[in-house]
Amino acid sequence: MAQPLLISALLRHAARWHGETEIISRTRMGCTRLDWRRVERRARCLGEALLQLGVHSGDRVATLGWNHHRHLEAYFAIPGIGAICHTLNPRLNLEQLAFIIREAKDVGLLVDTDCLPLVASLQGLGIEFSWVIVMDEQGGEDEQEKPGFYNYETLLAAQPATLVWPEISEECAAGLCFTSGTTGDPKGVLYSHRSIVLHAMSVALPDGLGFSACTVALPVVPLFHANAWGFPHAAALVGAKLVLPGPWLDGASLYALLEQEHVTLSAGVPTVWKNLMDHLQREDLRLHHLQLLGVGGAPCPDSLIRYFEGVQGVSVRPGWGMTETSPVAALMSPKPNREHWSSEARWNWLSKAGRPPYGVDFRVVDEHQKEVSWDGCSSGYLEVRGHWVCRSYWHEESEKDESQWLVTGDVATIDEEGYLQITDRVKDLIKSGGEWISSVQIERVALRCPELVEVAVIAIPDVQWGERPLLLAVPRPGVQPDAQALLQYLAQHLPRWWLPERLEIVHSLPLTSVGKVDKKRLRSIFSGQ
Amino acid sequence: MAQPLLISALLRHAARWHGETEIISRTRMGCTRLDWRRVERRARCLGEALLQLGVHSGDRVATLGWNHHRHLEAYFAIPGIGAICHTLNPRLNLEQLAFIIREAKDVGLLVDTDCLPLVASLQGLGIEFSWVIVMDEQGGEDEQEKPGFYNYETLLAAQPATLVWPEISEECAAGLCFTSGTTGDPKGVLYSHRSIVLHAMSVALPDGLGFSACTVALPVVPLFHANAWGFPHAAALVGAKLVLPGPWLDGASLYALLEQEHVTLSAGVPTVWKNLMDHLQREDLRLHHLQLLGVGGAPCPDSLIRYFEGVQGVSVRPGWGMTETSPVAALMSPKPNREHWSSEARWNWLSKAGRPPYGVDFRVVDEHQKEVSWDGCSSGYLEVRGHWVCRSYWHEESEKDESQWLVTGDVATIDEEGYLQITDRVKDLIKSGGEWISSVQIERVALRCPELVEVAVIAIPDVQWGERPLLLAVPRPGVQPDAQALLQYLAQHLPRWWLPERLEIVHSLPLTSVGKVDKKRLRSIFSGQ
Repeated sequence: MAQPLLISALLRHAARWHGETEIISRTRMGCTRLDWRRVERRARCLGEALLQLGVHSGDRVATLGWNHHRHLEAYFAIPGIGAICHTLNPRLNLEQLAFIIREAKDVGLLVDTDCLPLVASLQGLGIEFSWVIVMDEQGGEDEQEKPGFYNYETLLAAQPATLVWPEISEECAAGLCFTSGTTGDPKGVLYSHRSIVLHAMSVALPDGLGFSACTVALPVVPLFHANAWGFPHAAALVGAKLVLPGPWLDGASLYALLEQEHVTLSAGVPTVWKNLMDHLQREDLRLHHLQLLGVGGAPCPDSLIRYFEGVQGVSVRPGWGMTETSPVAALMSPKPNREHWSSEARWNWLSKAGRPPYGVDFRVVDEHQKEVSWDGCSSGYLEVRGHWVCRSYWHEESEKDESQWLVTGDVATIDEEGYLQITDRVKDLIKSGGEWISSVQIERVALRCPELVEVAVIAIPDVQWGERPLLLAVPRPGVQPDAQALLQYLAQHLPRWWLPERLEIVHSLPLTSVGKVDKKRLRSIFSGQ
Repeated sequence: MAQPLLISALLRHAARWHGETEIISRTRMGCTRLDWRRVERRARCLGEALLQLGVHSGDRVATLGWNHHRHLEAYFAIPGIGAICHTLNPRLNLEQLAFIIREAKDVGLLVDTDCLPLVASLQGLGIEFSWVIVMDEQGGEDEQEKPGFYNYETLLAAQPATLVWPEISEECAAGLCFTSGTTGDPKGVLYSHRSIVLHAMSVALPDGLGFSACTVALPVVPLFHANAWGFPHAAALVGAKLVLPGPWLDGASLYALLEQEHVTLSAGVPTVWKNLMDHLQREDLRLHHLQLLGVGGAPCPDSLIRYFEGVQGVSVRPGWGMTETSPVAALMSPKPNREHWSSEARWNWLSKAGRPPYGVDFRVVDEHQKEVSWDGCSSGYLEVRGHWVCRSYWHEESEKDESQWLVTGDVATIDEEGYLQITDRVKDLIKSGGEWISSVQIERVALRCPELVEVAVIAIPDVQWGERPLLLAVPRPGVQPDAQALLQYLAQHLPRWWLPERLEIVHSLPLTSVGKVDKKRLRSIFSGQ
């Protein structure tokens, strides 16, 4: 039978066959408890409201909010009626937001109450939306008095829920997300219905993150960031319970929600898990339900792997992806014959980035586009292609490259078994005396020093060698690290010529809008680049 | 990126990222040990050979063989070059085979040595193939001397393996399988590349049969029957190890292979598992690796569920499907909140047929096409639609029914949670005094009698009531069952007016070519229908 792969069909399936399965959303008022049947009905009401506001097929509808049920409903309703859900990151600075909204030509906005000041500031920069829907309870704020501003619940209450999801082409664009733009202006990545559904199926596989009807999934990874790693779609696909944490991602809030809702699966960036780990250690707490923790967005520190696997008995599954890859393109899913591994061997192995699922292919090539050998040490440029990998950007001419390989900007190795190891970003590599030094590997070793909690390595200009590494280190509170002892420690684990030229003790590191260390900014501060 | 969903891409993925993972094939000579890399290379050689034999896109290439590595290679090579893999069932009678081959207009045949007599008999009926490839070792037989007959390994050895899998449309037909034709002439069901890949992804999900790179999968379900429930494709998708048992499906052979190869997952019809259970009980043996057993093709007897779950600690997952549904359309995958169930409650629950995965939808309707309520007792006609459900048959005009629902011929109920229960085939229902009696439910109760090993219930004409049930029972060897005691037992568990009018003790029941009880034949013997 010819049926398109549509996002609305995921939601319809969940509502029909898993209608009673709960969707939990943490709000200021406590936890809102819905289920797939009611979420689907509310999404249809929102779809009707958007059509009445004049939204057409292909229009970009922006969202600016945290992980909660109204944002989830918008996630399904906007593409459900054939429009494009354009997720905005509330952590971006005003100029970036204004740039992105102008690029996308968003027709309207769904926004959280606590992001309303951003909307006012955007107006100051000349950004006007035809309409703004405030994703909050009825009557909570005075936004109804402003022309063009609507309350979400008031809009929904006026709808009869008679919408039938239209049958559209699976090739239609469904989502738009801009890269964080660490290397230049943000670029828009378009996802189609087909690419989102195939990505969700892949994420739900046992070697993905393993979604079943018995899974309770808490996406820490934000809805505004690259499909939230497919959590909303994979959960609907199998009828899993979803737990949405709102903006409360500190260790104590997360722990309370993980335990209260019996969460079995979560995923997010290392920083969040580090905060959770600190809280659990400080309070001597146990996780009783969590089984699997996806970690991505940045290399997963050894300390996290050892703590969650060794102390809490939670499997850690690092992965690799980027906005351009939907994002999940590789995961540290095991291969067989590992039964007799020691924990130590497994934890060392988990420092890699993963292997691709069906639907994604990688290659690591040298300057002449020749694949390097799969020996775990030959490094080269990482390229990727696949069903959910984008080839060109929003409003950019498609390159129509026959090979279809996307250049990731990462430097990587592949081992004998096909596991990728990201050794650096091309732009973060340090070229010293004609040889490459990996900033990521120096950071990994430095993070093993118990005195340090965060580190970053950047290149600084050097008259003799071209570039040399500079290590920036954030010490544990109350600790005065001994620079000489630290360098001696590094010398035991790194080639002598990789040893950082300088070591700077700093109180914190600047982060990008998605929580990664902002090396562009560090370079401008410390090396004038 | 626009990439088609192709069967060759599954194999390419397995060869590239899981090249060392073993493919084990039991042959007369012992076990052949290959891996995905070599299977992919050999499939490309076979593809080249087929092109040289003049096979074109869309041509039907027939196979007639058991589950072994050469058949597996053909499974990928034939659709890989754009042709259609038409699997023939060696258990069909000659007339049916001849009918099917004429209908399909197969251009050539790949055949097992032990099926060669069938080919000779088909020639007697006027069936000639342009060429026949014998799937055996080199030099084992004298078939090379017959014109148009080739040895598989000789053909492969002559190929340079330079073929690159062509990029074709995912809508192209890839497989053809005829229904067993219990109700009339066999009908051909076409599968596309897209439907096979989506079906494989669904089967590989945790709520499917759960395929991962650590799975060791033994398909007892034959390659010639409806994609072998997706085992070959799902295994390639995730890089699982495959163990192919050849024609040796008796309890002792299966047990030896399951243990020797550390098989974790298998699937097949109840008859095979009953034979395995008998062997394990007789010899007092334990299964040490098997984790999950898929059961389909016929209702799964309570005794199997109780033995494999209760004694062997193997999870049993019954499912429902038909050739027209690729075949996996429903599985007894759990929903949450079952932690406190007793084993007894779980085993009773497992007598149902399952719930659909994303991609398949069901409805149960009354005579007026109105959905019956989901209460577990209102029964009606089961209809199905989905990505891997066919709408029309080979060489039949497409019905272009807007609703796209396929009428299954089954009578079913759906419970509050969305689990199907098949209560009968429409044609096997017994209509007594204007009310329906379910033959399947009488059989289920009768099978609980320890004196009986097989049973079948059919309708016999009755002057007063229209039809009444007849129970045919095969007793355990050496046991003389007491008919009165049996009927008394049934009376305790069934409505009085359902009690079989007659009970016949028989030595065996006739089976169809796919191992189901042949009720059409029984009706013709016992009631002249």
